[in-house]
Amino acid sequence: MLALEKKILNEGTVLPGNILKVGSFLNHQIDVGFLFEMADEVKKHFENKSITKILTIETSGIAIAVPVAYKMNVPLVFAKKNKSQNISGDVYSAKIHSYTHGNDYDAVVMKEYLKENDNILIIDDFLANGAAMNGLIDIVNQSGAALSGIGIAIEKEFQGGGNLLREQGIDVLSLAKIKKMTDSEIFFCD
Amino acid sequence: MLALEKKILNEGTVLPGNILKVGSFLNHQIDVGFLFEMADEVKKHFENKSITKILTIETSGIAIAVPVAYKMNVPLVFAKKNKSQNISGDVYSAKIHSYTHGNDYDAVVMKEYLKENDNILIIDDFLANGAAMNGLIDIVNQSGAALSGIGIAIEKEFQGGGNLLREQGIDVLSLAKIKKMTDSEIFFCD
Repeated sequence: MLALEKKILNEGTVLPGNILKVGSFLNHQIDVGFLFEMADEVKKHFENKSITKILTIETSGIAIAVPVAYKMNVPLVFAKKNKSQNISGDVYSAKIHSYTHGNDYDAVVMKEYLKENDNILIIDDFLANGAAMNGLIDIVNQSGAALSGIGIAIEKEFQGGGNLLREQGIDVLSLAKIKKMTDSEIFFCD
Repeated sequence: MLALEKKILNEGTVLPGNILKVGSFLNHQIDVGFLFEMADEVKKHFENKSITKILTIETSGIAIAVPVAYKMNVPLVFAKKNKSQNISGDVYSAKIHSYTHGNDYDAVVMKEYLKENDNILIIDDFLANGAAMNGLIDIVNQSGAALSGIGIAIEKEFQGGGNLLREQGIDVLSLAKIKKMTDSEIFFCD
């Protein structure tokens, strides 16, 4: 998505540790109108797949998942990090390592919100090594639902997670795919 | 908002510690279409106030703040909990006590996303004793921006936070105001 690539080039900053900061429009301040344009692209790609539910994970996945769920007219479920006091009863859970924060956490989803007959589209803002994504796929598998695809705003292709998923036959749509980042330059795939 | 009160009565559960669980539509699974209806009500109330920015706090505030920001055509900023590796540079911050989780955390917003000439509408899913809200107001005050009002999905009026804010002259709109909760019943104001 050319408009997203332009926005990344204009507003993104590369921080040490391969971190791409896009806090001006995606995950701190949010350009909501632009997120709806991104959601249109995701819908276009997945609209023939009979999606019944969107799954994402807190925090910043929620902002992009809300417009996608709205456009596709299905409920959204977000996995919570850790087991909070507000989560009661039976949950699906998966342990995930955060390379950004250098710790492990549990992603949890209450069983009542994912059903065997669901067709799930997973949405997230970033895909890098795929640690969070593998946790979400694990949760989908535990529920017995079908995984219909994955929609990502920004994939850091050089970190390999997206291609490992594609090799498993999963339909991964990334609206911007970064091939390489240096302190001063960002290069996209294609 | 009658439709919200009905949804709370039909789908909500009261847990020990005055916790109202509305995970089926508001803060775990999300009925996105319904959130857009709620956003219409918020817009109707605040549309003459020249709002320039929506402020909320992660996590579940984001889901309701996205439709409000979309309808009002302004950017959304969400305060982050703790200072993560992705937050660099100067931030506004406020210490907040979470009664739900029994701990303290810092809410932080990068200074570049709140400006002196902003008119802020704060949005959140819940208002109880007002701890999180007072932290967000503190952050707005630090930035020099004007606070134009507060829009809440569900206020637990009996916990007093909302009325303390109204006594300060702040325009607080709550789409559902709960007067009293028991294990088996929920009573609304009016």
